[in-house]
Amino acid sequence: MSVVAVVGAGMMGSALAVALLDRGHSVRLVGTHLDSEIIDGLRASGRHKTLKLALPFAIRPYYERELEQALQDTELIALGVSSAGVRWACERLSDHVRPEVPIVMVAKGLAWDSKSLQILPDVFRDTLPISMRAAVEPVAIAGPCIAGELARRVPTSVVLTGRNPLTVNQVSAELAGPYYHVFPSSDPVGVEACAALKNAYAMGIAFGSGLHEKSGGQPGSVAMHNYEAAVFAQATFEMQQIVQILNGDPSSVVGLPGVGDLDVTCNGGRTGRFGHLLGLGVGLAEAIRRMSGATLECLEILEVLRSALPSLEEQGKLRPSSLPLLRHMIEVALDDAPVRVPFESFFSR
Amino acid sequence: MSVVAVVGAGMMGSALAVALLDRGHSVRLVGTHLDSEIIDGLRASGRHKTLKLALPFAIRPYYERELEQALQDTELIALGVSSAGVRWACERLSDHVRPEVPIVMVAKGLAWDSKSLQILPDVFRDTLPISMRAAVEPVAIAGPCIAGELARRVPTSVVLTGRNPLTVNQVSAELAGPYYHVFPSSDPVGVEACAALKNAYAMGIAFGSGLHEKSGGQPGSVAMHNYEAAVFAQATFEMQQIVQILNGDPSSVVGLPGVGDLDVTCNGGRTGRFGHLLGLGVGLAEAIRRMSGATLECLEILEVLRSALPSLEEQGKLRPSSLPLLRHMIEVALDDAPVRVPFESFFSR
Repeated sequence: MSVVAVVGAGMMGSALAVALLDRGHSVRLVGTHLDSEIIDGLRASGRHKTLKLALPFAIRPYYERELEQALQDTELIALGVSSAGVRWACERLSDHVRPEVPIVMVAKGLAWDSKSLQILPDVFRDTLPISMRAAVEPVAIAGPCIAGELARRVPTSVVLTGRNPLTVNQVSAELAGPYYHVFPSSDPVGVEACAALKNAYAMGIAFGSGLHEKSGGQPGSVAMHNYEAAVFAQATFEMQQIVQILNGDPSSVVGLPGVGDLDVTCNGGRTGRFGHLLGLGVGLAEAIRRMSGATLECLEILEVLRSALPSLEEQGKLRPSSLPLLRHMIEVALDDAPVRVPFESFFSR
Repeated sequence: MSVVAVVGAGMMGSALAVALLDRGHSVRLVGTHLDSEIIDGLRASGRHKTLKLALPFAIRPYYERELEQALQDTELIALGVSSAGVRWACERLSDHVRPEVPIVMVAKGLAWDSKSLQILPDVFRDTLPISMRAAVEPVAIAGPCIAGELARRVPTSVVLTGRNPLTVNQVSAELAGPYYHVFPSSDPVGVEACAALKNAYAMGIAFGSGLHEKSGGQPGSVAMHNYEAAVFAQATFEMQQIVQILNGDPSSVVGLPGVGDLDVTCNGGRTGRFGHLLGLGVGLAEAIRRMSGATLECLEILEVLRSALPSLEEQGKLRPSSLPLLRHMIEVALDDAPVRVPFESFFSR
């Protein structure tokens, strides 16, 4: 039993807080500057605004201005912020990070530094003051986890990974609970690449349901599932290629971080809705408008990959004909090209 | 352009007939003794009873008693029968099989001969008269294909595999058409194992939606998708292990025959409905009753694997603790045990 602070009171941070509480920890949930209304609601009634659920009262909510107090005597810090919040969190936390307090991240993404693709735990570490960098090795959670389900105690299986296996094993034991199954992984690069890529590929899989609706079809067991499944298969094939380019372990794709997370994201929500709209042919601007401000991680990762592709080709790590699905998704979701999945180019390196 | 006979006028054989016709072949569709009503309907109105669709009139329907006539001058024979029909087809066709006429199979399954697991193209060949065995190398189609979608010309991507690469390439070229994408594979064992196994694992993935309904939940984006996705991930992990035991290529799992077909089967129909009923807890007998006579390939393959497991363990190919999901599915679907997926045993060899 430890004192744990979850920083970021959005859906995923708050769901993790429930799992940590049920694991027996003392849990403090700290809103960022974007989460004030959520903390208001938790303080007033215990109800979480976006999870649409009453959280257990034992989870103690804090406003961002109370961060120092919330972090006092903390034995584990969980970062519940999304990829966009990682640099903010790093700056805000840099005075409080201590080598003996492990940091767990739920953010998913990759960053391009004009030379190579970086995983977010490394970005976080490299943003810390130089004196701290050697001592802090953040670990990261990946795998199929819809926050609304974890918060409702649906059995959930995730992977925990990081560059220090001792920390990974220690934190895995601190997280794993009755319905939260945590599998340690020694492949941070492969796992984190999968976590980022699955958002892009889930968007592409959802093209099929949009095309089906466009052609006048009704949802059901005869729709365009053959189309979607072929894209799903190519997605896993390309994810293995990308993981290999980054010197990760392609076997991470055949498990929770790859196919597991891809599967859940197809069932999940906004990424699928966005891909559906693109398949429906409403156009990129209108599709973004209809998502009414929802964060679209698929666009973030596609932007990163568009920046990275030419350089990876120059470095000889990639052929111009490789990753045809990824390239098509970039055209559709960033350049507003019509959906025309190049099946005939699939399954070739 | 060739003369092609499709033997078996069920949904998959008939859907293949449409794709072959659109590819430019002259197509004869031959019902088995079980397909008389389908042929009646096609002759009377062109409408296919189970596909619920009018087939193009250029597809010429034949009754089983007209098989000899239908096979005259045929340049390619497609076997549209299910696994249960393979031995029947072999006996019925043995007088007509010629080395220069390739045979394509759509049946999916594995057979246990008390020593090893056999793929169906090998079962077919070994059932032929001895004089023919050396000359005939059937090829097989696998991958994500809901027949009702292919028959409606939904873009569909499949794998063609067999023991003779020349035949595989030749037949791939004969099959591939504008919306039917055919990828040759030199891994018949891995591909055919995936094709059989995916039915069992899709059943296990569907446990989650049944459990969700049992707990009073409504379908939607917050359900038990985390649960289902973890089972999906373990399914691909175990499929790779089984393919390896059979000396197939585990990379076939990361593509159309594995994750692609698993994905489509989860969206598809009866296998998912059956797994849902088991998750709902209605009991095995009642679940089978509610499927009202539908063929349950998942039970066939689980029976085969239950027979095979002890021997594979004795041969040292498998540990008693390996494949925990498969073992649990056997308990649930063959021995009527309650669903209690052993997540804590996942992802370990």
